[in-house]
Amino acid sequence: MAAFHEAHPRVDLDFVAGSQDEICAQVLQGRLDLAVTYDLALPPGLQVTSLNAARPLLVLPADHRLADQEQVRLAEVIEEPMIVLDISPSRENTARIFRDAGLQPHVAFRTSDFEVTRSLVAKGLGYAILVQRPAGDLSYGGEPLAVKSSGEDVAPLGVIMVRNPQLRPSTAATALAAVVDRVARQDLWPG
Amino acid sequence: MAAFHEAHPRVDLDFVAGSQDEICAQVLQGRLDLAVTYDLALPPGLQVTSLNAARPLLVLPADHRLADQEQVRLAEVIEEPMIVLDISPSRENTARIFRDAGLQPHVAFRTSDFEVTRSLVAKGLGYAILVQRPAGDLSYGGEPLAVKSSGEDVAPLGVIMVRNPQLRPSTAATALAAVVDRVARQDLWPG
Repeated sequence: MAAFHEAHPRVDLDFVAGSQDEICAQVLQGRLDLAVTYDLALPPGLQVTSLNAARPLLVLPADHRLADQEQVRLAEVIEEPMIVLDISPSRENTARIFRDAGLQPHVAFRTSDFEVTRSLVAKGLGYAILVQRPAGDLSYGGEPLAVKSSGEDVAPLGVIMVRNPQLRPSTAATALAAVVDRVARQDLWPG
Repeated sequence: MAAFHEAHPRVDLDFVAGSQDEICAQVLQGRLDLAVTYDLALPPGLQVTSLNAARPLLVLPADHRLADQEQVRLAEVIEEPMIVLDISPSRENTARIFRDAGLQPHVAFRTSDFEVTRSLVAKGLGYAILVQRPAGDLSYGGEPLAVKSSGEDVAPLGVIMVRNPQLRPSTAATALAAVVDRVARQDLWPG
């Protein structure tokens, strides 16, 4: 975005974050030029561009008995309480992962907020499955988290750009889409 | 919450985060037992308990020319672009601060997300006024922020618990309110 702003300083940029439903609705209504999201639980009628992929991660408190392992399999924590980030597409992603693994989690808490989920994990109330990994691996309160790959247990999730195919994009929207496409691909495959 | 869960292990706790409008509407509809929020832009009809107060902070990129000052006055950055977290009550809080100071900010970007706001600041696109300060002072991408007090320029904002006075609280809700009250007061005035 910094790169786009330098190249196009007179274009006003507004940023909106929200659940899959909210964001996709705004794209379909023409209120957003584009959105970057996950390839899951999408409504019909969107133009989808694949950007990269992310592998969901297992988030544990830093003092968890398995925190020193490089990988933690889902089966190793399945008897423990889980905290679900219960908004789309995290809800569908979590359900998909356990369905694929043939496992049934013990859901202890549901939240609608990414950082509340991380804070509950840091307090030792359960584990969580999250895709985004903020730098630092700390909760907002400063408690450390152990963020682990589950290896082949968890399939990657596509990261995509969605636009409205019914609308002719403005010059600015086309330029922004090109920057998003370039930056998002670099992010995953540098060099 | 960890303390409450230990004392009341059989009570199911759900956590919801959202804008002031969304959260207060859910309390008034009886869908939430209580909410912790800021004392600003509240709808009528809520029972309000004062918990503590927080002073909004000026957030700068770590390489900002004023990042080494202990305090940064609003007038020192007022000619620079500002990034507004444009959701209630952050929107009203930011407007109130500049109105009180008799200053007019140059709004460069509007976002609906706390972490997008912090990321844009970290990228050098402007300063922001935010109340919450996550541990670590890093953006999600790992770029450092300089978080500064503006001293007497910025009045504190009340942190409150809101409930629905029309509803008789359950035993669990009463116990939770007592824990929230105790923990939130300790948080600000330890000892």
